[in-house]
Formats: sequence, structure tokens, C-alpha cells
Amino acid sequence: MSSSPQQPKRPLTILQRSLNMKVSVRLKNELEYRGRMNNVDSYMNLILLDAEEFNGANPVANYGKVVIRGNNVLFIKIEKDL
Amino acid sequence: MSSSPQQPKRPLTILQRSLNMKVSVRLKNELEYRGRMNNVDSYMNLILLDAEEFNGANPVANYGKVVIRGNNVLFIKIEKDL
Amino acid sequence: MSSSPQQPKRPLTILQRSLNMKVSVRLKNELEYRGRMNNVDSYMNLILLDAEEFNGANPVANYGKVVIRGNNVLFIKIEKDL
Amino acid sequence: MSSSPQQPKRPLTILQRSLNMKVSVRLKNELEYRGRMNNVDSYMNLILLDAEEFNGANPVANYGKVVIRGNNVLFIKIEKDL
Amino acid sequence: MSSSPQQPKRPLTILQRSLNMKVSVRLKNELEYRGRMNNVDSYMNLILLDAEEFNGANPVANYGKVVIRGNNVLFIKIEKDL
Amino acid sequence: MSSSPQQPKRPLTILQRSLNMKVSVRLKNELEYRGRMNNVDSYMNLILLDAEEFNGANPVANYGKVVIRGNNVLFIKIEKDL
Amino acid sequence: MSSSPQQPKRPLTILQRSLNMKVSVRLKNELEYRGRMNNVDSYMNLILLDAEEFNGANPVANYGKVVIRGNNVLFIKIEKDL
Repeated sequence: MSSSPQQPKRPLTILQRSLNMKVSVRLKNELEYRGRMNNVDSYMNLILLDAEEFNGANPVANYGKVVIRGNNVLFIKIEKDL
Repeated sequence: MSSSPQQPKRPLTILQRSLNMKVSVRLKNELEYRGRMNNVDSYMNLILLDAEEFNGANPVANYGKVVIRGNNVLFIKIEKDL
Repeated sequence: MSSSPQQPKRPLTILQRSLNMKVSVRLKNELEYRGRMNNVDSYMNLILLDAEEFNGANPVANYGKVVIRGNNVLFIKIEKDL
Repeated sequence: MSSSPQQPKRPLTILQRSLNMKVSVRLKNELEYRGRMNNVDSYMNLILLDAEEFNGANPVANYGKVVIRGNNVLFIKIEKDL
Repeated sequence: MSSSPQQPKRPLTILQRSLNMKVSVRLKNELEYRGRMNNVDSYMNLILLDAEEFNGANPVANYGKVVIRGNNVLFIKIEKDL
Repeated sequence: MSSSPQQPKRPLTILQRSLNMKVSVRLKNELEYRGRMNNVDSYMNLILLDAEEFNGANPVANYGKVVIRGNNVLFIKIEKDL
Repeated sequence: MSSSPQQPKRPLTILQRSLNMKVSVRLKNELEYRGRMNNVDSYMNLILLDAEEFNGANPVANYGKVVIRGNNVLFIKIEKDL
């Protein structure tokens, strides 16, 4: 599972290289959380800073720092790449 | 998975460093529990003290000491950081 | 995962130290069981004695000795601490 | 996880010591099965003999020998203790 | 987990000793499959021959040889014992 | 888990011996996929070629090559045996 | 689990050999994501580039780069083979 530099990167490696970027995290319950991805682990547990909760296009709530449990994640959209 | 001091902290490490802070724990069944996080383990099992149960903005019940099973956790919002 | 005496106790340790106390166990199906926690293991499988089943505030049934499978547990409220 | 004789017994140990007793097994789908617990393993897979299926208080069907897969179990009520 | 001859048999052992018997397999989706249990493994994956699908008392479809994934199994009723 | 030639074959062995046969794969969401089983692994992840999606008796869509994640599988019906 | 060249390829091997192809990923919530599969791991976590979200035949949203958590995947249709 090691990757030489010319290979495409594994999904979890991509997440690790996207720390401090803005992300949108869609959960299985259809809610979406947008914020800066402070950190993430191999289970996709992640810390969002300056997080906002969206129900579709509508912001529902603001959070400072939130830890999302990875098993609820549907997908993570990386808004800005390095 | 060891982190040097200048790296961002892993999600579970952040939780461990937030012991005794006030947290809001949203569960998969949409209920929310607020209280002081007495302890937490790597599975996100956690002990809340002076816990209150909320259904949206409405407090539903008061609990003294409650142990929440980690697999039900959607997210943990850390209310006050050190 | 060993804890020195001055550290807060891990969730599963707290449960082990609460044997024979009265507890309320809320399950994922919203039913609640109250009784004396005779024992519990690391999976949160637990034995309740003199158990009563509640649907909200209404007692539904009485049980003598019941073994609850841990994966159904939402939370365990410890009614009386040592 | 070994227990000295004066300690309360672990949940799975209690089940093993209750072989051949009458039990009621409630499943996650709300159906209940009553019969003699011929055997059980650590996953709570169990064999019931002379099993009856109940939907609430109403017997729905009779079974001779049935193997229930443990992950469906909500709780096991031990009707008669040794 | 070895059993001496005078002990009751573990659930998975009972299944292994019931090969080629007629069984009814109830799945979590409430459908039931009846046929001859050609084989079964420790996960309760099983092969049914001459299988019929029932929705309650009504046969819905006939199958020749079907492999059922064990995690869907609610229970296995052994129709005829050796 | 090794089997001598005169023993019935384990479920996963049967699947491995059925490569390139026509199969119907019923998923937990009630949809059914029919095609040639190009390969399958122990988790029941499988590759179907010339796959068709059915909703009951009605073909819904055609697929060339599709990889189905094993945890969604309810059963695999082997249409033609060797 | 090693395969000699003349054997059919295992499902996860096929996915690894399909990197950079166009794929349609159907999730358990019935939504479908189409894009170029930049990478995938053994859990079916995958990275899609130029991803589009479909609800049936209707495009719902465009994404740049999205990481899908593997446990939500129903199937992956490989649109163009090498």
C-alpha cells in the first residue's frame, strides 16, 4: 500500500494532504458541514473549524470546533486544492 | 500516528485534550446531549456530567452522569476550548 | 490506556465501578430499561436485575433478570453514584 | 476478564450458566421468541428448543429447533434461574 | 470452545451437523427461504438447494441453488433433525 | 476449514467454482442484477459482466462491467451450474 | 489470493486497474456520482475528479474533487475499460 511518487495517491493520503483546506462534509443523514479541515484520521473522523451546518442550500447553525465521527461520512468534497 | 508538536492534532487526541470542557453531543437519532465531558475513549464512548437532553432547542430532560455508547455519535461540538 | 489515580476514569472503567447501582439504559429503539446493573462488559453487554421496561414515562413490563446486547445501547444513565 | 468466585459474573458467563433454562429473546424487529436455550455462544448466536414466536402477547408460530443469529438480539430475559 | 461429548453443542456446531436437512431461513427483510441446506459457514453464509422464497405463507419464487449472505439471516429453523 | 473431496463445499468455495456462470444477485435494496459472474472475493464483492438491473421482473438498465460491494448482497442465485 | 495471469482478476484488482477511467458510483442512498476515478483503496474509499451528482437521470450538482467513503458504495460501474 506504499505509493511511489509517480502513482496516484490513495484516498486517505489525499485527505491527509488536504489539511487546513476548506471542505464540505456530507453525512448519511443528508446534512452537510462546511469548514476548514483541521485534521482527519484513517477512519475519516475529522475536526472542522469555523464549521457551518447546511440543510441543502440553507445554513442551519454555526459551530466553532466540531469533531465528526467518521462512520457517518458519505463524502468529503475538497473545495480548494493546494 | 504519533504527532510532533508542530503538527495539527488527530481527532481523538483533540478529544482527549478537551476533557472537562463543555460539549454538545449530537446522536444519530437527532437528539443532542450537552454537559461536561468527563472522559472519552477511542471508540468515542464518553461520560457526560450535568448532562441535559435537547430535542432541537428544547431541553427534554436532565441527567446526572451518563455514559454514551460511541457508535451512536454523529458529532461532538467542543463549546469552550482551553 | 492505563490510568493513574489522579486522572479521570475511562467510560468503561466508570461502568465497571458502577456495578450494583441503579441505572437507566436507553436503547436505540427508544425503549428504556431501569434496574440494578449486575454486570457489564467492554462491549456494553449488561445484566439488569429487577428490570422494568419503560416507553417514555410509562412502565410497560417487569423483568427479573435480563441480558441486554451491547450494540443496542444508546446510553446508560447511572442513577446513584458510589 | 477472569472472575474470582466472589465477583459478579460477566454477561456472557451468565448466559452460559443459564443453558437449558426457559428464555424470552426479543429481536430488533420487535418479535419475541420463547423456548429453552439449548446453547449460546459469545456472539449471542443461540439455539432455542420448543420455540414459540410472539408478536406482543400473541403467539404467532411454533418452531421445533431454531438457531437465532446473535446480531439480531435486543435482549435475552432469563425466565427461571438455577 | 471445544465441547466434550456430554455438553450441549454450540450453535454453529449444530448448523454444521444439520447439513442436507430441510431448513427455513428467515431474513431481516421478512422474506423466508426454504430448501435443503447444502452447506453453511461460521458467518452463516449458506447454500440452499431446491430453494423456495416465501412471503408469509405464499411461495413467491423457486430457485435452484442460492448462496445467502450470512449477515442477512434472522434465524434458521431446522425442519428435520437427524 | 479445509474440505476433503467427499464433503459438501463451503459457500465461498461454491462461489469461486461458479466463475463465468450466469448469476442473479439480489441486493438489500430489493434491486436485482443479472449477468456473468467474472469474479468474486470472500467478502462477496463481485464483478458482473453484461449486467442488467431489474426491479422485480422489469429490466431497468444495462451495464457493461460493474463491481458490486459485497456488504449489499442479500443472495446470489447461480443460474447454471457446471 | 494471488492470481496467475490466466485467472480472472479479483474485484479489488479490477478496480485498481481501472484508475483514471470514467465510473458511475451508486450509493446506498440512491444518489449516483459520475467522474474519473483518481484512486480507490481496498475499502472502496475512492477519489472522483470532475464529479457530477445525479438523482436518477438528472444532474444535481458538480464537484471538483470528492472523496467517497467506501461503506456507502452500492456498486461501481466502469464506463470505459482499458
